[in-house]
Amino acid sequence: MQASAGGSGERLGAARPKQFCALQGRPLVSHTARALERISWISDIIVVVSLEHIETMKSIIQKYGHKRITVVEGGVTRHRSIFNGLKIFAENKLSNCPLQKPEVVIIHDAVRPFIEEDILLKVVKAAKDHGAAGAIRPLVSTVVASSADGCLDHSLERARYRASEMPQAFLFDIIYQAYHQCNDYDLDYGTECLHLALKYCKTKAKLIEGSPDLWKVTYKRDLYAAESIIKDNLSQQVCVITDMKGDAVQVGFLLHETLKSHIKQVKRISVSLCKDDNYMQNIILGQCYNFICMHVKKSAFQETQLVDILENANISTLYPVVLISVHLNVSENASFSSEMEDLNRIKEFAREVKKKNILVYGLLIHYNKDDPQLQETVNSAATIISALIKDRNPELIGQLLVA
Amino acid sequence: MQASAGGSGERLGAARPKQFCALQGRPLVSHTARALERISWISDIIVVVSLEHIETMKSIIQKYGHKRITVVEGGVTRHRSIFNGLKIFAENKLSNCPLQKPEVVIIHDAVRPFIEEDILLKVVKAAKDHGAAGAIRPLVSTVVASSADGCLDHSLERARYRASEMPQAFLFDIIYQAYHQCNDYDLDYGTECLHLALKYCKTKAKLIEGSPDLWKVTYKRDLYAAESIIKDNLSQQVCVITDMKGDAVQVGFLLHETLKSHIKQVKRISVSLCKDDNYMQNIILGQCYNFICMHVKKSAFQETQLVDILENANISTLYPVVLISVHLNVSENASFSSEMEDLNRIKEFAREVKKKNILVYGLLIHYNKDDPQLQETVNSAATIISALIKDRNPELIGQLLVA
Repeated sequence: MQASAGGSGERLGAARPKQFCALQGRPLVSHTARALERISWISDIIVVVSLEHIETMKSIIQKYGHKRITVVEGGVTRHRSIFNGLKIFAENKLSNCPLQKPEVVIIHDAVRPFIEEDILLKVVKAAKDHGAAGAIRPLVSTVVASSADGCLDHSLERARYRASEMPQAFLFDIIYQAYHQCNDYDLDYGTECLHLALKYCKTKAKLIEGSPDLWKVTYKRDLYAAESIIKDNLSQQVCVITDMKGDAVQVGFLLHETLKSHIKQVKRISVSLCKDDNYMQNIILGQCYNFICMHVKKSAFQETQLVDILENANISTLYPVVLISVHLNVSENASFSSEMEDLNRIKEFAREVKKKNILVYGLLIHYNKDDPQLQETVNSAATIISALIKDRNPELIGQLLVA
Repeated sequence: MQASAGGSGERLGAARPKQFCALQGRPLVSHTARALERISWISDIIVVVSLEHIETMKSIIQKYGHKRITVVEGGVTRHRSIFNGLKIFAENKLSNCPLQKPEVVIIHDAVRPFIEEDILLKVVKAAKDHGAAGAIRPLVSTVVASSADGCLDHSLERARYRASEMPQAFLFDIIYQAYHQCNDYDLDYGTECLHLALKYCKTKAKLIEGSPDLWKVTYKRDLYAAESIIKDNLSQQVCVITDMKGDAVQVGFLLHETLKSHIKQVKRISVSLCKDDNYMQNIILGQCYNFICMHVKKSAFQETQLVDILENANISTLYPVVLISVHLNVSENASFSSEMEDLNRIKEFAREVKKKNILVYGLLIHYNKDDPQLQETVNSAATIISALIKDRNPELIGQLLVA
């Protein structure tokens, strides 16, 4: 199985190739690699990059702990790069890493990070049946052909055509043979692997209708969209860790209930369970990237403990984790300078754990059990928490917000 | 000149048609209408909407003060809607609003809000010369045709084809004649106006290479992208209003200088100039949507005055305005409860002016003129200000952040 990561990013107008642009702090190619490597039946992932980016790619693999990835030097065109990737299996050049020739090979773009297992399964199954298969999407715009003078020659009937997207899958022998037989013109000017399989192996690829998620990050606006989608995905789940006693239990309960109308999945656990490694491991395996520590001031449970747990589980390696420290303030007589001290403590702590990709914010809830506006305060707290989780703004870490 | 706003939004997966989805609180169609109406040589804008959305559209026109717009009922397909729009000029149905038949008509989509004057000029000029013209873009994906069994029939050579985008422009008589002559099949299944002009009037449209901004908001990710682009555009300029005396002048100057490395255009004016209506009018006409009021505590200048100025100028009708109230704190002995009172004051004020689409945030800078870390504090302030402006988060209004 193979993923191609060629391309120079010139359309994006970015200084670096688009596959190396950061989304939530991590290069796009790493997001795509992650999407592929979490699928257990993909045995090997080949990333093809130009010579100048091989070291960058290797350091990305190391930094984010990618597995089963082999980096291969690309060619000057898309087809030449893919061909280089395929050769690894056929020619076994890498003496220290003999990859077995696969039955089926998937070809994918590094700039399509939102690839799901179901479409991969569909193209692989179809490739086994038909020799080749590829994802398609309806055309968004009409396609036109121009004459030599830059005027309309004819337009295509939109319904009869499709956009060819990725992933595509092939019986290895078919696509490898196609690349071996094709000429320099194909290698230099062609872009479509399905076309090569048709032309040189008479293999008519099965076309599989894919989801809109398959789109290719091409322009700057696509980076914006991808960033928003990732943030959206990360903000679906929150884990509330409470250490509430007496009256405060009520606020904890209220906040938990109110959060449910803002965030899809709200888990609530008590501090004692936090110390149970298995329990926390489950939460973390559930891909939770948002934690709320809720306690009356000077609680026994320290956010530092949670940070240790998160760090040991490598949870913040792939995505920034949001940690909101919610303080219930019951006294109103604290001096401003002692309050400032607390604030400085949060700021320093936030700055420290930012290095571990954990974003810490403080939230103060003034609590008076007889307050008729308690629900309103809790609503405000839930709104702020939800906004912090959805924004994941690294510049506002260490701030103490007030509900 | 005409803008079409048909389409049902089914591809977006949204509850309402995509042209009515909100971007920074305002419907997409209003952003597109604004882009067209600010161009003085466009005499009339026709918005075509389905019967059920006519009232919605009319209320949008009123709410956002759009000018030169006529709402027309659409048909069941794209072509029928456009035809309805064109009929307004030819048949003068509206007795109370006799629109003059134009020489050239522009056809545009409501879901392409980032339309610029230069491409409009180019297609209009080309339409005068050639009878028809349309914007095109390179294809992002290869286009394939499938055979009856869902397999690849052939793929098109990507370089020979282009995506047909909007805007398009036509000599009115040509496009109107084309619509009059075309058959029901065209009206029901066709999508391409350039094709009609070619087929029925033998007019070969000039194809004009457009910018990536012309893309069509089609999927949810496109809404995310559009939102980010608008935020990006809004955060290019900030106006710093200072009322600094004595030592504080130094901090004002430092902050102003530091902000320049975060925000493209930083204007600085003193409070006295604020009271000069002409001066403020210039700032506002310069499309500034971000204001920082900087003063030592208990200043004579109140943010309320600025809000009045903004309100009178209707500046926050089209986009939310960010107003950051920066307090220089020189004393450290204020009690916590008095500090809380200040916070509550900001919160209430923020809640109040939110109704006017003005987003207020507080920022506290602790200032001691001999502090060796002053530059660091100012850096922190600039980072927070820049983050608030870029995020424009309505849920964090009224918070008092600390640099």
